[in-house]
Amino acid sequence: MTGPMRDLTSRMAAFAASADPARWPEPVRKEARRSFFNIVGCILGGARHEMVDIADRTLGAFAGPQQATLFGRGRKADISHAALINGLGSSIHSFDDTHETAVVHPSGPVAAAVLALAELRPVSGAALLAAFALGVEYNCRLCLGTTVPPADGSFAWSGTGISTGLGAAVAAGRLLHLDTEKMRVAMGLALSQASGFRAMHGTAAMALMPAHAGQTGLRAALLAERGFTAGLSGLEGHYGYLSVFAPNPNTDALVGGLGERFELLRNTYKPYPCGIVIHPIIDACLKLRQDHRPDPARIARIDIQASPGAMALCNNRDPKTEMRAQVSLYHWTAVAFLRGTARIGDMDTATAVLDPAIVAFQAKVHAALDVSLAADQTEVTMTMDDGAVHECRIEHGIGSKTNPMSDADLERKFAGLAEPIVGAARTRELIDRTWAIGEAADAGDLARASA
Amino acid sequence: MTGPMRDLTSRMAAFAASADPARWPEPVRKEARRSFFNIVGCILGGARHEMVDIADRTLGAFAGPQQATLFGRGRKADISHAALINGLGSSIHSFDDTHETAVVHPSGPVAAAVLALAELRPVSGAALLAAFALGVEYNCRLCLGTTVPPADGSFAWSGTGISTGLGAAVAAGRLLHLDTEKMRVAMGLALSQASGFRAMHGTAAMALMPAHAGQTGLRAALLAERGFTAGLSGLEGHYGYLSVFAPNPNTDALVGGLGERFELLRNTYKPYPCGIVIHPIIDACLKLRQDHRPDPARIARIDIQASPGAMALCNNRDPKTEMRAQVSLYHWTAVAFLRGTARIGDMDTATAVLDPAIVAFQAKVHAALDVSLAADQTEVTMTMDDGAVHECRIEHGIGSKTNPMSDADLERKFAGLAEPIVGAARTRELIDRTWAIGEAADAGDLARASA
Repeated sequence: MTGPMRDLTSRMAAFAASADPARWPEPVRKEARRSFFNIVGCILGGARHEMVDIADRTLGAFAGPQQATLFGRGRKADISHAALINGLGSSIHSFDDTHETAVVHPSGPVAAAVLALAELRPVSGAALLAAFALGVEYNCRLCLGTTVPPADGSFAWSGTGISTGLGAAVAAGRLLHLDTEKMRVAMGLALSQASGFRAMHGTAAMALMPAHAGQTGLRAALLAERGFTAGLSGLEGHYGYLSVFAPNPNTDALVGGLGERFELLRNTYKPYPCGIVIHPIIDACLKLRQDHRPDPARIARIDIQASPGAMALCNNRDPKTEMRAQVSLYHWTAVAFLRGTARIGDMDTATAVLDPAIVAFQAKVHAALDVSLAADQTEVTMTMDDGAVHECRIEHGIGSKTNPMSDADLERKFAGLAEPIVGAARTRELIDRTWAIGEAADAGDLARASA
Repeated sequence: MTGPMRDLTSRMAAFAASADPARWPEPVRKEARRSFFNIVGCILGGARHEMVDIADRTLGAFAGPQQATLFGRGRKADISHAALINGLGSSIHSFDDTHETAVVHPSGPVAAAVLALAELRPVSGAALLAAFALGVEYNCRLCLGTTVPPADGSFAWSGTGISTGLGAAVAAGRLLHLDTEKMRVAMGLALSQASGFRAMHGTAAMALMPAHAGQTGLRAALLAERGFTAGLSGLEGHYGYLSVFAPNPNTDALVGGLGERFELLRNTYKPYPCGIVIHPIIDACLKLRQDHRPDPARIARIDIQASPGAMALCNNRDPKTEMRAQVSLYHWTAVAFLRGTARIGDMDTATAVLDPAIVAFQAKVHAALDVSLAADQTEVTMTMDDGAVHECRIEHGIGSKTNPMSDADLERKFAGLAEPIVGAARTRELIDRTWAIGEAADAGDLARASA
């Protein structure tokens, strides 16, 4: 291997082993803190989901010592099980975070891995946040460098599934003080277990991918620490990660300007618990409802000009389950017009997904592909039964990088997620603790307070 | 999806849920028994390998209740950890089994999964063997149908890594009596976590792939049993397994003649603990040594006409570690001429890999690609310092389908693997128990006797 591909793995490993994210520019550190804050809320909010219950009850029978907290579940388990279950919670509502251009939800696996590890091997909150920032940065870079043109990765792969074991491994490896060589081993192990494709969309298997990535990444770092061996050029090596996932990667996106240019700055936070490509559509529908207060019965049809991403991932009519409704633009359009909301409760199978009014409204919704639209754009046209036509174009959906969630928005989101799980008083405490993670003497205190 | 691709997953799931491998033709059942016998020996033989020690010590700290035996390690752990560690042992010496044409080592992950599960949920030996046969058959079919032309899968993927989670899931699912729908879920979960590429060759990460596949396959079946959800068309679905691993699969190899035609009959067992593509070379070298009894010091050069597989995977000169020596045709050529053997001890790092005589001899060895050679063929030419030339051509290496390991060969192999771990007396008992697994009232007895 020659040219820009040469030594990719060792360059990333050396940077991971030696970087000092605590001295990264303030905007980067701030975004790391926002990413961390957002994902802790998501972990709490997903903690009691039926699929998390199933996974914990089933696999908890094989779990080990009470080393790490299962957020919002009132108990502990071994760190590997905790990484899996907390990772699953972070993603199960599809309410996490997304890089602006790479379709990756970067934070869940990293947070799940480092939070679990921090309870077994105590570290400061600053060290935890630094490791987390590094892991998120690497997940964004890996997905960006392999799936976004000019890179040639296939959209069939789950960007989150195949990219985020790396960040979990690097972040855990950082907390374990791995040197460059062992960091390369950890990267090799994690990269060689990268998996996940989109045929699982609309099922819990999709949320198992980041959970699995966090668990395998954590395991990779632990095995590397103890001397397990792996190929040292996992990324660029012959028959390595890039050869299978993206033979023509964007190496600049992967390693260009490490420590100087930050993809973390392009992380965004979901305002709604569903596929991010639906978000601008929800914005438009809520705006039309607010501006015109239409009687839903008098709406003749809704026409949606949808982005390629929305059509590829969420053009799913008449979902029958919550997991499927998460990725149905028809469901959320109906919810927005009928309820004026887009909350977790709005995809409950019994009370929302199968609600006859929501099901019936979807028949009025028509989506058409508009290849000129970006993922955060849409144009929605509402035609009334008297022929009146109202349009709403969204240039940048709420939560996009151009129209970001404010800190106050993130707090409201956190509260909405956490309060049903741990109550209002504990939620307030956790909000304060999570924002202040960088000052905590023992990062594990946050996890223990989140039981 | 139309045509032959349609319903692939549901057809395989329905067959898996309803087939009766106990009534498959006698030659098939016999080969299943041989495959099982061979892999139990491999699990025992790998039990105390340094890398298995590292993995068990590291990850054992997170393991749960003492549910299942860690073969040859004198202790128990939860079934998930047991599946991982026993799977790692099965593969760590690269001494397991291989399908005749698909480059897959099909048995380890399946055996590790069902043996662990059988200790938690007691089943008869016949049921265990039936589930094992089904899993091995599916692993062979999946690898054959995706990686062997006319299928177009990339050789960069580890066939074992990406194919064997399926068989582990299906075999475990069979023991759990999953119905067709839940079998589809288990398949979807396992397929969507398929991983592994060959850049890890020559390291312990390669053996972690089947271990991981067995563990994730077992987990997939357990999660499916309890109602976790996954896409139901994991193989052929849009953005599914086939779309990423082999857009043009051989569907006949995948599902043609299920229950009538058996890939299990084409499973082969390794006579030597190294990459199978080196085996005919070892045969040739041992034969030249036996026929001509050359003084190694008087050998001027060894020329090897090597198959494409041998050159792609094992053209590794001067290995420095055991794991690397496993995939070095130069190392094994030197060992064969200098020692007249090809045993596990012949790749010990200190006493063999770095043995100055073995290292020096490799400088005399020259390998050249001969694209006309099959994986079990080679031609080796020995040139003496007096100009004498001796040739040996191997048409079918020992252990190939045309020149198979006999039951007695398999017993000798088993004894060589197990005796250093559990002693001669216990080995004799385990040989008898393993051959007779089909008659055991409780399959778990074999595992318990193998501690």
